[in-house]
Amino acid sequence: MKSEELTVQTGGHGGVFDITADVAGFASGQGDGLLSVFVPHATAGVAVIEVGAGSDQDLVAAIDHLLPAEQGRWRHEHGSPGHGRDHVLPAFVSPSLTIPVVAGRPTLGVWQSVVLVDTNVDNHSRKVRLSFIEG
Amino acid sequence: MKSEELTVQTGGHGGVFDITADVAGFASGQGDGLLSVFVPHATAGVAVIEVGAGSDQDLVAAIDHLLPAEQGRWRHEHGSPGHGRDHVLPAFVSPSLTIPVVAGRPTLGVWQSVVLVDTNVDNHSRKVRLSFIEG
Amino acid sequence: MKSEELTVQTGGHGGVFDITADVAGFASGQGDGLLSVFVPHATAGVAVIEVGAGSDQDLVAAIDHLLPAEQGRWRHEHGSPGHGRDHVLPAFVSPSLTIPVVAGRPTLGVWQSVVLVDTNVDNHSRKVRLSFIEG
Repeated sequence: MKSEELTVQTGGHGGVFDITADVAGFASGQGDGLLSVFVPHATAGVAVIEVGAGSDQDLVAAIDHLLPAEQGRWRHEHGSPGHGRDHVLPAFVSPSLTIPVVAGRPTLGVWQSVVLVDTNVDNHSRKVRLSFIEG
Repeated sequence: MKSEELTVQTGGHGGVFDITADVAGFASGQGDGLLSVFVPHATAGVAVIEVGAGSDQDLVAAIDHLLPAEQGRWRHEHGSPGHGRDHVLPAFVSPSLTIPVVAGRPTLGVWQSVVLVDTNVDNHSRKVRLSFIEG
Repeated sequence: MKSEELTVQTGGHGGVFDITADVAGFASGQGDGLLSVFVPHATAGVAVIEVGAGSDQDLVAAIDHLLPAEQGRWRHEHGSPGHGRDHVLPAFVSPSLTIPVVAGRPTLGVWQSVVLVDTNVDNHSRKVRLSFIEG
């Protein structure tokens, strides 16, 4: 298995960070197999969505609506006010994703991008582990 | 790796589409390994739920409640009114799922079915990629 | 592929059950590869979150808020009152999770634990299938 960690500069503001090019570059030159995207942090997830037409902001707004970052709402009270909701997020937006690779290319659809979803404002950079297992 | 695309006729109405038989058929005759179900579309996901006792309709109702298809609510404004929410759905109902296969049989529980979750009314057929990697 | 089922005593109350030690024990002695965690039940999921600082209770509260266990709200009407929502849960908190393993160790972050999420009060024990495929 080929496995390596990628660093994503999130700049300490929450949001959606496109890592599609990194995923494609990692798969390039490999054959057929499964590519695992895994975030080793307790306050972030990975998703496959369209970016660039508003859906990235829509996703952040939906997360803010469904899991509000309100102080006092969450039992977990470390970090910035409302940070407790960042710790619930990965149960719904999983830190784990598996993408089939055929002839060295992730089999993503035309409008699909792989994104890191990170609403945590207390960290400025995040790791993402990419792993490829040939089949 | 064995990998192929399945076509699901959704008829242009949103909902839950049972693909368990396709998944079982694909695994049949294989040995032990991991089976990946991956939807190459930006507005659909896959889930493992019970079907036939109301939970499929309950899921559609829950999605409508949590992510309402209201015009003006979403930044993404292509397609039918409210279509923007379809683009947020895959962050919560992931297009990627991995199921262990033992002796050519998916290790699903008695009440589990594999379903395509597609709330997009602008497309009448969808693809689902099935891949199997032996271990 | 190495594959076995784990039994988790949930005691018939809903909640979050830490299985990190079981996952680590299962991976121990293996090399590099992908570890699949799969719950063969239609009313439970698996997640990777922090435990012990309140986020486990926060997750249960978020589920109760987003998917209320209210009688009459759900079409599925078997089991205890409100049980219908347990059948919708796995669409959002998936029963399937894949974790990379490097040199026999799951590549979890410091604050990440693997948990069974089970809101079903009608069952007192649950199975979780662990599978490892070497790469």
